[in-house]
Amino acid sequence: MSKPIEGIFTPNIVPLDANGDIHEPELRKYVDWLIDRGVHGLYPNGSTGEFVRFTAEERKRIVEIMADQAAGRVPILAGAAEANTRETIHACEHYYRLNVRAVAIVAPFYYKQTPEGVYAYFKEIADNSPIDITLYNIPMFASPIDVPTVQRLADECPRIVAIKDSSGDLPHMMRMISAVRPNRPDFSFLTGWEAALMPMLLIGCNGGTNATSGIVPEVTRRLYDLTLSGELEEARKLQYRLLRLFDAMLYSAEFPEGFRAALNLRGIRTGAGRQPQSPLQQQDLGKLKDQLYGLLREEGWADDVPEEDEIARIVIQVLADLQRRGAF
Amino acid sequence: MSKPIEGIFTPNIVPLDANGDIHEPELRKYVDWLIDRGVHGLYPNGSTGEFVRFTAEERKRIVEIMADQAAGRVPILAGAAEANTRETIHACEHYYRLNVRAVAIVAPFYYKQTPEGVYAYFKEIADNSPIDITLYNIPMFASPIDVPTVQRLADECPRIVAIKDSSGDLPHMMRMISAVRPNRPDFSFLTGWEAALMPMLLIGCNGGTNATSGIVPEVTRRLYDLTLSGELEEARKLQYRLLRLFDAMLYSAEFPEGFRAALNLRGIRTGAGRQPQSPLQQQDLGKLKDQLYGLLREEGWADDVPEEDEIARIVIQVLADLQRRGAF
Amino acid sequence: MSKPIEGIFTPNIVPLDANGDIHEPELRKYVDWLIDRGVHGLYPNGSTGEFVRFTAEERKRIVEIMADQAAGRVPILAGAAEANTRETIHACEHYYRLNVRAVAIVAPFYYKQTPEGVYAYFKEIADNSPIDITLYNIPMFASPIDVPTVQRLADECPRIVAIKDSSGDLPHMMRMISAVRPNRPDFSFLTGWEAALMPMLLIGCNGGTNATSGIVPEVTRRLYDLTLSGELEEARKLQYRLLRLFDAMLYSAEFPEGFRAALNLRGIRTGAGRQPQSPLQQQDLGKLKDQLYGLLREEGWADDVPEEDEIARIVIQVLADLQRRGAF
Amino acid sequence: MSKPIEGIFTPNIVPLDANGDIHEPELRKYVDWLIDRGVHGLYPNGSTGEFVRFTAEERKRIVEIMADQAAGRVPILAGAAEANTRETIHACEHYYRLNVRAVAIVAPFYYKQTPEGVYAYFKEIADNSPIDITLYNIPMFASPIDVPTVQRLADECPRIVAIKDSSGDLPHMMRMISAVRPNRPDFSFLTGWEAALMPMLLIGCNGGTNATSGIVPEVTRRLYDLTLSGELEEARKLQYRLLRLFDAMLYSAEFPEGFRAALNLRGIRTGAGRQPQSPLQQQDLGKLKDQLYGLLREEGWADDVPEEDEIARIVIQVLADLQRRGAF
Repeated sequence: MSKPIEGIFTPNIVPLDANGDIHEPELRKYVDWLIDRGVHGLYPNGSTGEFVRFTAEERKRIVEIMADQAAGRVPILAGAAEANTRETIHACEHYYRLNVRAVAIVAPFYYKQTPEGVYAYFKEIADNSPIDITLYNIPMFASPIDVPTVQRLADECPRIVAIKDSSGDLPHMMRMISAVRPNRPDFSFLTGWEAALMPMLLIGCNGGTNATSGIVPEVTRRLYDLTLSGELEEARKLQYRLLRLFDAMLYSAEFPEGFRAALNLRGIRTGAGRQPQSPLQQQDLGKLKDQLYGLLREEGWADDVPEEDEIARIVIQVLADLQRRGAF
Repeated sequence: MSKPIEGIFTPNIVPLDANGDIHEPELRKYVDWLIDRGVHGLYPNGSTGEFVRFTAEERKRIVEIMADQAAGRVPILAGAAEANTRETIHACEHYYRLNVRAVAIVAPFYYKQTPEGVYAYFKEIADNSPIDITLYNIPMFASPIDVPTVQRLADECPRIVAIKDSSGDLPHMMRMISAVRPNRPDFSFLTGWEAALMPMLLIGCNGGTNATSGIVPEVTRRLYDLTLSGELEEARKLQYRLLRLFDAMLYSAEFPEGFRAALNLRGIRTGAGRQPQSPLQQQDLGKLKDQLYGLLREEGWADDVPEEDEIARIVIQVLADLQRRGAF
Repeated sequence: MSKPIEGIFTPNIVPLDANGDIHEPELRKYVDWLIDRGVHGLYPNGSTGEFVRFTAEERKRIVEIMADQAAGRVPILAGAAEANTRETIHACEHYYRLNVRAVAIVAPFYYKQTPEGVYAYFKEIADNSPIDITLYNIPMFASPIDVPTVQRLADECPRIVAIKDSSGDLPHMMRMISAVRPNRPDFSFLTGWEAALMPMLLIGCNGGTNATSGIVPEVTRRLYDLTLSGELEEARKLQYRLLRLFDAMLYSAEFPEGFRAALNLRGIRTGAGRQPQSPLQQQDLGKLKDQLYGLLREEGWADDVPEEDEIARIVIQVLADLQRRGAF
Repeated sequence: MSKPIEGIFTPNIVPLDANGDIHEPELRKYVDWLIDRGVHGLYPNGSTGEFVRFTAEERKRIVEIMADQAAGRVPILAGAAEANTRETIHACEHYYRLNVRAVAIVAPFYYKQTPEGVYAYFKEIADNSPIDITLYNIPMFASPIDVPTVQRLADECPRIVAIKDSSGDLPHMMRMISAVRPNRPDFSFLTGWEAALMPMLLIGCNGGTNATSGIVPEVTRRLYDLTLSGELEEARKLQYRLLRLFDAMLYSAEFPEGFRAALNLRGIRTGAGRQPQSPLQQQDLGKLKDQLYGLLREEGWADDVPEEDEIARIVIQVLADLQRRGAF
């Protein structure tokens, strides 16, 4: 049996160049930057990674670049959801050959499936995948995976080894753990909701796949370590501070624009995202960037945050990029 | 300044007699039973107490009986929501004269109010109440009280001293604490969602008002004590066990019928509730009672659970009551 | 068998005096005003009538005043929902003695009931009521009454003779009609959503209970008449114009404040409502009143709209009232 | 200016062969079958067409086959939503070269966009598309397109010529028509909710894009014709009958499996869909097929429905297909 999936896995934003294509050198730099700052693993093609906004070929390319750059230093969970189960199984086979630790597959989206449909979908993939699978439950975007379905899949499919749950619902996590762990002590439970990372770990989660760890990896890692070592007073304080950053990035712009803005402040040149932003949205993003700049400085989480005039330079460049791409 | 509101407050079911009227002797017995088992306070006229199914006169009578019976042994939070602010303020005045610790007032329901409307409602009451007020946020039943509104009310109204939040959303609780505590260190945060009681306490809640504490008061109290004393391994185990009971009572019948069924198993004769139950619902309640009986026995939480034939006797009596009341 | 319930029934706002009490003379005047302008019936204690904001005694008094004033000129549907089925049945008995045509009872609210619970609730009332009953489905405020439940109640309970449905969902109305009419050709279907009054009548509704008919009764009545007489081109135009007024009253303030504001513009002195309004909400209501004034004038629906300076006088008086009541 | 988009456009299911690939001969046969039965246009790559379950290459191939087969007999609306605006604009260019009438683009899905984000998305596409665009609003699956955004896009983008709205909300349709038609009399409003087709046409819609027209095209067409010619009594009856079929296909299985089952009953061999079905779901589909068979026969809508033993033959073949594909 493989080692259980544990710790902080980072769902990474994909840097783009001025043409809107994958910026490979910056992506490689970002992989090193994350590993250097202590994340336990990487998670390309997640929701933060905007997998639906890339083509099937690009999704594969992203994992290839990252697996190559990580070179085994940390395990990789590769998002593998494609247009249908046949394509998804092909992606599983491809990622298997790349030696990633496991794939992560979101529940069917667009159409909202019943529990039976969610079960049938994962069952077909699990029965045909050569690589371990992490279920991905994110009910705000995709069909929910309910507790009996997780239990049923865990009982029937040894290939399924973990679940990432982004519902943020703590009792729901406890219900899953109660239902699955007795039969599958190897099964991992990862929270995608860092707003509750400390309490989720305290009730038994194995780790988290948290967008915030792509922005302040050292902080998320420290929160994980403090909680596991029982330094709860420190952990609680850090959880409150992380929540403040998380809320600012999540609720002030369309996801994941706030995270992209903050990542630029830490020196990773993400380029503009692929979802067009209206002039009003661009203005709001400018204000958010100022706010995040202040917050990161104030928290002392940004030794590498560039000076004010550097910021101005970046903003000008981003605006120029946007203009080139016809955004205004 | 009064002592902050802390610990486990029990929102109690109201025992009814065969005519469907308040069963005063059984209610008095229940008050003693709860205090003897360690709850820190009582909370009549909450959602568990089905305040909307009693007349205005009955709601007052319930608090009078309980305050008289408690006789100062534990503090009382009296649910005081009436048809409009004028009636609610009159209830506040009445409960003030009864010497209860504070009132609890649910946000406007039926009509869904905006945050401005929720603010205006509580502001008018707080400006005219002689007694401390606990806000009651239960978004599944009533208008939600959002974080800025809690902050605004806490800043403007010294009469408002606490919030009971039944959303079960842990980051939401943290956001409220962050927003309010700096200016109002005396303000109390109580969770109404015992499915997450331990983690809620760990991130800073002052206590809980939990229906489950009306059924297994000694267990809820012990969970509270274990968490506060840092015995987290024990606390976690107990939280999981309490969740199992909570789920069985909450999701297997219309609220609060599952709680009522369980309370009978502990020897408090609740009588039938006021919301009619269809023959199918009555059958389901019978099965639930069997399941709860097994669960309470198995957990060792029911030394006082009557023997099987005693159960049968009770069931027969309940059915007879129901028939008398025309339920079938 | 009684005559089926048909036509436009007006859910009326209750005028209040400067003390916030029922303004009986103005309520009587309003009843006459409505009947004179052609509504087919009256519907006190509906959602527009803010039944939950009055005491049980006040609700009875409202129906008594209106039944006395109507004096049989038009039939009355009296909202009879009370705290529990026993109280509701008493209200049914009381309204029966007042000779109203039928009662209307909203599905259980606050707690959200399952279809079985909704069924059991109405069954108990219907089995004990001396007066005909109209079900009231308003899923945005109360437990939904689904199609199988309506069918089941219609089949089992001859006392239940109609449903008012405020969901605004046209296919849902068709599903109810398909399910119920074959066995109960006498059963009436009333839409509470005047935004779709014409199409609802065209697919078979018997009428509407529409808040807008309390503001512009002659217009709602004319829309009804045009539709029934097949003047569809005219009806469509009027439906679009009515929708504009409906949206302005419904979406610009907390319900039913926009309707109250408009009613004042037509010369009925409603007084301030019982739900407190924050200073910001009061400002917004002032702006809305101006907008409604313009809209009513422009549409020619307000021969009786007072002149501008009259408006100013009313506004001053209303503000004075509010101040007396401590609103700011 | 091109001719406005009017009438019934059929969002077609894509027949698949035993390998799960596009069954080109059956698709060509289906196109002819639909045109022969009177639909005004075709709409490949809609929700009924399961566009998200095909690869980008397959989506293009589907339109190519259908445009070639239709050969200008009826106009085509080609679903063109791809992974991002760049890919979508490329698809627009491709479909322009195929001479289809217009493309249809669903609002961003998976991530839920604000109105500003929805605006920015469509604006970028409309500014770069060589072909007319139909907005596609389906709030149950994708970000909602609200009325002000439709108005803004209609005012700014001459390329945008229509909206397909599948919300089924009649007053919402009226609000859009009120907001857009004064400035854009050429703009078309199509309902995707055939449960309300007749009333939608009566309040001013230009037509519908209705999955049911892919199953009983002659019936949907006749409902359209009856409504436009003012034969309302007949239209109403047919609308009720169509609703019964629609509900049976829509609510008895995961969308669009019920439609697929019914289409087989009319002699189009669809093959199994790409979303796996659990054994329980397959059983339910079998029962649904029987029910649909009875319903189509009873309504006289299925002269071409094969005899019972033919049905049995098809079922056996479908099960064999499923087994080959590893479904059980």
